[in-house]
Amino acid sequence: MNFSVNEAVEVLERTPLVLNQYLSGLSAGWLKCNEGDDTWNAAEVVEHLIEAERNNWIPRLEVMLQEGEQHSFPPFDRFAHLKSSAETSIEQKLIEFKTIRTQNLTRLRELVDPDVHLDMKASHPDFGKVNVRELLSTWVVHDLTHITQITRVMAERYRKDVGPWEQYLGILNK
Amino acid sequence: MNFSVNEAVEVLERTPLVLNQYLSGLSAGWLKCNEGDDTWNAAEVVEHLIEAERNNWIPRLEVMLQEGEQHSFPPFDRFAHLKSSAETSIEQKLIEFKTIRTQNLTRLRELVDPDVHLDMKASHPDFGKVNVRELLSTWVVHDLTHITQITRVMAERYRKDVGPWEQYLGILNK
Repeated sequence: MNFSVNEAVEVLERTPLVLNQYLSGLSAGWLKCNEGDDTWNAAEVVEHLIEAERNNWIPRLEVMLQEGEQHSFPPFDRFAHLKSSAETSIEQKLIEFKTIRTQNLTRLRELVDPDVHLDMKASHPDFGKVNVRELLSTWVVHDLTHITQITRVMAERYRKDVGPWEQYLGILNK
Repeated sequence: MNFSVNEAVEVLERTPLVLNQYLSGLSAGWLKCNEGDDTWNAAEVVEHLIEAERNNWIPRLEVMLQEGEQHSFPPFDRFAHLKSSAETSIEQKLIEFKTIRTQNLTRLRELVDPDVHLDMKASHPDFGKVNVRELLSTWVVHDLTHITQITRVMAERYRKDVGPWEQYLGILNK
């Protein structure tokens, strides 16, 4: 086991800054490309990250920190962001993500004492008891999953353009 | 085909800034972890990117832009950076990468007229004729491959920590 709250926060606080550096000002060609039907473009991934800040990590953490282990998580719809009709620019989305992430990391520090709370549990609808350490580790790896997704989607756009180099580029061989 | 020089440069100029935002100031735990024997940590990936700036992209481009298609590439050792005995901090490596990338993008603009040069060719030692468009596309996707590698290596560090969420996290299922 490698988890520590401080090291997890190092990654969590960087993600909105990394995505801002990565995506802000990019051409529509990069921001709107995806991997085919029912796949997300980079802007949709950022919307999903915002949705998870609103309705996943901190709400689930608050459930876990209640007394008793029988509490269940509130529902989280992984596709909720696709139902939004609001058209905002990538810059607005990136600011929104950074703002809510900053608020949530403040809330995390208020709620969690690493010496006391990491083993507190709640019930996940699919796989039963999970604890605070697992939830916070998952928050980190979820960020990393979606940074990889954005990167893979962008690489896909040049699959044909790289010609015979395709075989040497790991990202195109997943 | 989606390649354009301007859009390729958008990604190429961002990569050192993204990696700086991602890695600068991170704990050694994140910077030194890898995926097992003979795999690279994040710092080694940055060293490899520097090596490719020195000895791969621009030298190969210069060969392609010579008259005739029979010219072969100079050799590029993908593991050269592992032989370096210099111990530099991640911050030094990131600055070095940004400096040489900036120089190389200036050189790219000097060398390549997109209306004239994209179809010029040279011989790759493994798969024969390749052209400037394919080389420059590969430069972009190579960046994206290594951003993904760094991200995957970091995620691996928390494989056990996420508990049963492992099955839901795509980055852990490669």
